[in-house]
Amino acid sequence: MSSIYLDHNATTALDQRVLESMLPWMQRQSGNPTSRHVFGRSSRDAIEHARTQVAEACGAYASQVIFTASGTEANNFAVKGIAGSQAGSQILHSAIEHPCVSRPAKAMQQTGWLSNAIGVDEHGVLSVAQLQQHLQTQTSVVSVMLANNETGVIQNIAEIAELTRKAGAFMHTDAVQGLGKMPVSFTDLNVHAMTVSSHKIHGPQGAAALILDKRVDIQPLLHGGGQERGLRSGTENVAAIVGFGAACELAVANLAHFASHTQMLRDTFELGLKSLNVTIFSQHTTRIPNTSFFALDGIEGETLVTALDRKGFAVASGSACSSDSTEPSHVLLAMGIKPDLARGAVRVSFGAHNTLLQVADFLTALKNEILRLKQLTGVAA
Amino acid sequence: MSSIYLDHNATTALDQRVLESMLPWMQRQSGNPTSRHVFGRSSRDAIEHARTQVAEACGAYASQVIFTASGTEANNFAVKGIAGSQAGSQILHSAIEHPCVSRPAKAMQQTGWLSNAIGVDEHGVLSVAQLQQHLQTQTSVVSVMLANNETGVIQNIAEIAELTRKAGAFMHTDAVQGLGKMPVSFTDLNVHAMTVSSHKIHGPQGAAALILDKRVDIQPLLHGGGQERGLRSGTENVAAIVGFGAACELAVANLAHFASHTQMLRDTFELGLKSLNVTIFSQHTTRIPNTSFFALDGIEGETLVTALDRKGFAVASGSACSSDSTEPSHVLLAMGIKPDLARGAVRVSFGAHNTLLQVADFLTALKNEILRLKQLTGVAA
Repeated sequence: MSSIYLDHNATTALDQRVLESMLPWMQRQSGNPTSRHVFGRSSRDAIEHARTQVAEACGAYASQVIFTASGTEANNFAVKGIAGSQAGSQILHSAIEHPCVSRPAKAMQQTGWLSNAIGVDEHGVLSVAQLQQHLQTQTSVVSVMLANNETGVIQNIAEIAELTRKAGAFMHTDAVQGLGKMPVSFTDLNVHAMTVSSHKIHGPQGAAALILDKRVDIQPLLHGGGQERGLRSGTENVAAIVGFGAACELAVANLAHFASHTQMLRDTFELGLKSLNVTIFSQHTTRIPNTSFFALDGIEGETLVTALDRKGFAVASGSACSSDSTEPSHVLLAMGIKPDLARGAVRVSFGAHNTLLQVADFLTALKNEILRLKQLTGVAA
Repeated sequence: MSSIYLDHNATTALDQRVLESMLPWMQRQSGNPTSRHVFGRSSRDAIEHARTQVAEACGAYASQVIFTASGTEANNFAVKGIAGSQAGSQILHSAIEHPCVSRPAKAMQQTGWLSNAIGVDEHGVLSVAQLQQHLQTQTSVVSVMLANNETGVIQNIAEIAELTRKAGAFMHTDAVQGLGKMPVSFTDLNVHAMTVSSHKIHGPQGAAALILDKRVDIQPLLHGGGQERGLRSGTENVAAIVGFGAACELAVANLAHFASHTQMLRDTFELGLKSLNVTIFSQHTTRIPNTSFFALDGIEGETLVTALDRKGFAVASGSACSSDSTEPSHVLLAMGIKPDLARGAVRVSFGAHNTLLQVADFLTALKNEILRLKQLTGVAA
């Protein structure tokens, strides 16, 4: 596949150094980490080393790291687990959360929970006024993502956490799109729980973590052998956890370069978009540096993504994580964008290995495809 | 680590051919399977190929395979998901289930469910009479494992499923220890749901599946992006799923050799135990061929396992999957074995690569260690 990959918010390639850290756990006999023999103890040690690496990358203590198999699992665990350990009241989340936060919250409604979404402004920034209003009702958990997967918008989590704490609720943040793209500190964000994931930072799929303040009661989502202090059962995925640890270390080491490089690519890209009469969402808001989300009125995002794919450029028409992609982005709708324009949305998310030449080539292809599609659909150019 | 690995029921080494099938998904850019571009479609195709491989190995249709990240997750999903989609009544499971079946069932008690364990006889075989008695109460799910991880005892699942169906309940079986060690057919077992796992059959950790009759209503355990037909959200672990598929194909191809070879090793081993005055559990019952579970009165299993580990042999003192290992095996207690004897239990589980020479060396080491420990503890030899 010689296509240019511009979809790093969906998933990233495994870093060669991460793969090398994993291979010893895949090439020879390794033990179940619960086993007491030398093979098991060796696996256990590797997991504990990775736990330290993840903790350090997240400004947390190793004892606060609970490994899961995916960000989705960590988010489900946070929402259902923290709420489930309390008397039923309200779960709050932003209107722009990934469905793996909003849908567990909705599912909890079946068991008597109140679930409400807090709106955002036209730039995609959470409405603090709405949050304060909702917090008048007794609330157990507030979940607001650190950086949005579609727009890249960064929320002021520390401020939101402060209000949440004052209202006696627990604060969770999905930091999956933040880690590796901006400084992420569990301590500084002042949250009770935080989700991070491996495959968004050039680590393997199959590893993620919920960082959890140990004073928070939480119910397990997976019951069984009692791994992860009884909070998350299941044989640990040793190679993936080892890779996640290595990826965390690299993500922190590479952060400054990633930020400056991808921001340079994005600025160049968005400057190139100027002549195209496109709407760039959240452009004048604090965003993670690699993400550009834009739309053309009158051209379906899906259509453009398919056309660009044929030309050798892999981009997204919104979140890659949602199956009902015929609907316009819920993030854009929450921002008050008209459904017609929202349907035109295309997301480009750069990685450290993308180049300026690729941006130039992509801009050329994009212009050509837009022209072609406008001619096809009869939209005035 | 030059130790001899005799703990294949806990986890197995990744087969070199399985690793090779995975590496293309780890060495180059691959896409999120939900993405529409070429990278995403390629990942999607790989997952669907693996789904067919898993289905064929399990006597099921590809459309019945729901990938999860672990056997623990699949078992939690089956128990909570099937029960959760019905009006609250009874969950039944055998008294010898892995905790990732019995504990989710127990957790459901909090939300008004009745959960009961069906006893086994002294050989570890499920009491059909007890099952029938319990089925007099309205029941939603019955979960009985195909082969026990500790004793290796195989249950007559088809018969149990027949009774379960007649009572109007759904039948689930945890076949994690069966796959690769005996023929496993979802169709022949006549169950509604079946759990299989990758890392027990020389596949990678991080992949497993719930095989599910599509007529069964089930609630997701993980809500989110709607992957796996909306039943199990979360970005798919492409490399692990590909490896699971390859491992399934190999497991079926190698089954005849695995069965005859490990049975030969076990028979030789158990013959060698004769002079030692040990109790071999479930010896005269139908067992998977690779497993031997035995105990010596007066010697702690943990102590013996530690001593053998020092001598270079990796065995288990029972299930590797339970954190509260100071308790004697719940499987043996359910069989009516006295706690003192149960505390002496040691499990040996052979793999295809073990040799007769290793069995001989292990028997020698075992005899020496038993003698030494008996002298230390003053137990009459």
